[in-house]
Amino acid sequence: MTTYTEKGTAAPAAYFTGTVWVNMNVTPDDGYNINMGTITFEPKARTNWHTHTSGQILFVIEGIGYYQEKDKPIQLIQKGDVIKIPKTVVHWHGASHDSLMRHIALLPDFDKDKTEWLEPVRDDDYNSL
Amino acid sequence: MTTYTEKGTAAPAAYFTGTVWVNMNVTPDDGYNINMGTITFEPKARTNWHTHTSGQILFVIEGIGYYQEKDKPIQLIQKGDVIKIPKTVVHWHGASHDSLMRHIALLPDFDKDKTEWLEPVRDDDYNSL
Repeated sequence: MTTYTEKGTAAPAAYFTGTVWVNMNVTPDDGYNINMGTITFEPKARTNWHTHTSGQILFVIEGIGYYQEKDKPIQLIQKGDVIKIPKTVVHWHGASHDSLMRHIALLPDFDKDKTEWLEPVRDDDYNSL
Repeated sequence: MTTYTEKGTAAPAAYFTGTVWVNMNVTPDDGYNINMGTITFEPKARTNWHTHTSGQILFVIEGIGYYQEKDKPIQLIQKGDVIKIPKTVVHWHGASHDSLMRHIALLPDFDKDKTEWLEPVRDDDYNSL
């Protein structure tokens, strides 16, 4: 049995802005054809823009954050929310300005998924809420 | 966006003992090839013994509960725990005697999964911890 409440290790700086921690809980090596972990974003931290060909599911378990799909407004997300990210849609997620945000992130159908990382979210986009 | 913090609806009595609530958050119709929801067990409530051919992942998000695989002792599980249930292993999960237990439950590779429901967990097995 493992535990998801630890912060884990620093996320790769190439794909994130700010301080982000990743705790991988279920990896493809476990044999379930998924990738599942808990990600903690300190205030103002966020992913780069990116896509998943199999889509992604987020369960927000702590704090307040932002989620945005390309060409749509930023949505406020908070503890209790389930976000179903459509396949291939360009998007980002992260903490709000003043609160950290923690979510479980699930990549389903991992054997078919391709995640593509794009450019960082610029401050003027992040500040547009 | 949906929310996982509601209790949802009563679980089917044929497969559970006691009072259990199911809030389905991601269904196969959503197109992610998973079944994912939040299940709330009131004290002493539990699933029947059962199996999943694709296995199952639990994230305990509230309370204290029990998990048991056939022919092994009951394990105490609590908020923060990730349980990786092996494929085809006969098992049950539920609340402890005095606390409710709430977990996220994920069935991966849903198109290949077959869940088989078996007999209820007898009180003397439930009380064996």
